[in-house]
Amino acid sequence: MFTTVLTRGPVVRPEIARITGLSSAAVTKAVKPMIEAGYLEELPQGERAVEGAGRPAYPLAVRADREFFVGVKVTADELIGVVTDLRAQVRDAHRMAVSGRSVEQVVADIAALVRELGPEYAERTHHLGLSVSGDVDRPGGVVRYSPFLGWHDVPLAELVAGETALMVTVENDVKALTVAEQWFGEGVGADSFALATVGVGIGCGLVVGGRLVAGGYGVAGEIGHVPVAAGDGPACHCGARGCVEAIASEEAIVGRARAVSGDPALDMAGAIERAHGGDAAVRAVFAEAGQAIGLGLAAMVNLVGPERVVVSGEGLAAYDLFEEDIRAAFTTQLFGAAARCPLVVRPLPWEEWARGAASVSIQSLFAA
Amino acid sequence: MFTTVLTRGPVVRPEIARITGLSSAAVTKAVKPMIEAGYLEELPQGERAVEGAGRPAYPLAVRADREFFVGVKVTADELIGVVTDLRAQVRDAHRMAVSGRSVEQVVADIAALVRELGPEYAERTHHLGLSVSGDVDRPGGVVRYSPFLGWHDVPLAELVAGETALMVTVENDVKALTVAEQWFGEGVGADSFALATVGVGIGCGLVVGGRLVAGGYGVAGEIGHVPVAAGDGPACHCGARGCVEAIASEEAIVGRARAVSGDPALDMAGAIERAHGGDAAVRAVFAEAGQAIGLGLAAMVNLVGPERVVVSGEGLAAYDLFEEDIRAAFTTQLFGAAARCPLVVRPLPWEEWARGAASVSIQSLFAA
Repeated sequence: MFTTVLTRGPVVRPEIARITGLSSAAVTKAVKPMIEAGYLEELPQGERAVEGAGRPAYPLAVRADREFFVGVKVTADELIGVVTDLRAQVRDAHRMAVSGRSVEQVVADIAALVRELGPEYAERTHHLGLSVSGDVDRPGGVVRYSPFLGWHDVPLAELVAGETALMVTVENDVKALTVAEQWFGEGVGADSFALATVGVGIGCGLVVGGRLVAGGYGVAGEIGHVPVAAGDGPACHCGARGCVEAIASEEAIVGRARAVSGDPALDMAGAIERAHGGDAAVRAVFAEAGQAIGLGLAAMVNLVGPERVVVSGEGLAAYDLFEEDIRAAFTTQLFGAAARCPLVVRPLPWEEWARGAASVSIQSLFAA
Repeated sequence: MFTTVLTRGPVVRPEIARITGLSSAAVTKAVKPMIEAGYLEELPQGERAVEGAGRPAYPLAVRADREFFVGVKVTADELIGVVTDLRAQVRDAHRMAVSGRSVEQVVADIAALVRELGPEYAERTHHLGLSVSGDVDRPGGVVRYSPFLGWHDVPLAELVAGETALMVTVENDVKALTVAEQWFGEGVGADSFALATVGVGIGCGLVVGGRLVAGGYGVAGEIGHVPVAAGDGPACHCGARGCVEAIASEEAIVGRARAVSGDPALDMAGAIERAHGGDAAVRAVFAEAGQAIGLGLAAMVNLVGPERVVVSGEGLAAYDLFEEDIRAAFTTQLFGAAARCPLVVRPLPWEEWARGAASVSIQSLFAA
């Protein structure tokens, strides 16, 4: 009920009843304590109000500044933090280099970042959302495995809660970004959609039936481990062969660009520069990566059937080098009516990922 | 509410409240009209009853013979029909060759089959479920595309309703089988599971968040069109290359077995015979098919994260020839904790597919 108002903006009670399937009486009853607690307010009848058959309807809106939320995207080099209001609008942002990759260092850094983040918001901030790439147990608040930090089974929520006195949620970074899209972005009102990210890894957050797909064993959306070249494809860090990630991750692209260019010191920026400069062999490396990504996306669409796919991630810096191949492989591989599924490319800065972490903490407020 | 009693068997009111999240008062209120209409009955306190803190609890059960349902699996050669009760238990079954593949012929044949099916059930039968392979628009009752029948945009539900005076549902055959598993089989109580079928085609029904995944554009579970050998794989009838179905469908296996054996008249039974007889080249064809199926299943699990996977289909006749390769590829390709997902193989005769069609019509009774 509350999420309807939160994600749709000012909305009148009959409309809430229509969307949620609740009776008018049930809506009125549910709304009352939320108004009393200050989370919702009745707007004067403005241009967004509509006349019902009976009494005039006053639109309900979320009081965005009732409470604030901190979101932090944790990477191996840097913390990216934001403060948002209840509507996930970013009010403040800070970045901070991590002092090291040990659990103690990162926990201390997060606590320091929280202290830096807008003290003017402090008294109305009770929730902190963290997002980390890798295998995260959100209900347990545990980072089960983070390859980039080298962590195994770290009870991060508990540790950070001890240092900050905030209620802490931890979620996989791609899933957190998907929650932000679902509640406050392209996914509002969609029964299903997919958010794929291209970069160091290749991941995907899925919403099906209006819910984030968590996976029966905590694994879902692993588009990077769709085997698109199983027979003679390159070995993947996961132990299999021919995975999308073995062909199209940043590490895979750099490795192959080094091999074809004969320059063992080449990095991603250098590979992009060579490709832009007309090096046909390095361009072909990007083209193959694009084809693998397009096939992985199409496999996902053929299996899951999302209404739309959003592609983002830091890998978009090289997007002009593989967009054509992504789209060609995607289109060829889509089955039947799935060909109508749009593929939207949208760059999202790191602060959007931090906003995703904040969105998860907003969500946790209402799940509780 | 009703589905809780239907799928869990006799169950006391407090247990219904726990499973559905409804209040005891709401359960009692909802149950009353269902008892009056004869769909539910109160059992005497038997061994399945439990003592609550207060009044004794009488288990509620579905009155299975309150209403009967006809399910028909429509194939290009044959109709397979069953009558089930409200609990989807098969009471009667008939098969009938089709007189031809035209819409008129098949509609007339379905009507004839319905007349043959247990006249003793007639007065309590109001619903007929049909299942067809291919692209089916269930809400519209339309077979959008059936490759085996050669049909496009056939309003089958309307046509058959006109001939039988029953309320008719049409669903894709694999999805219908998945509904039967979800409501009355391995899927009861599971938040997510997958049912894959191997045979003429390779398909998959998915349940996520307790709901059958329909796909934003009506396409989902197309495990047959996961590109596992995109680079140099064989051409698929869908227009792409290296799809699972291009390697592991019955047609693909027979085609390759003919090529490697040099026998252009070889059929599936002959190919299986040669493989069992020790023909290494034909055995290798089955091994490659098994590998492709295992990779497709693993891609699905990595993306969707079902709690378990059931594999069935008429292709199981050759299962001993590719089980080892299916399992090896599946296990190697699963990512992280997804390796815990069990793969269960279970033969399902055609009557089970017809029961799936009946299950969809039972479901439609309560959706309405």
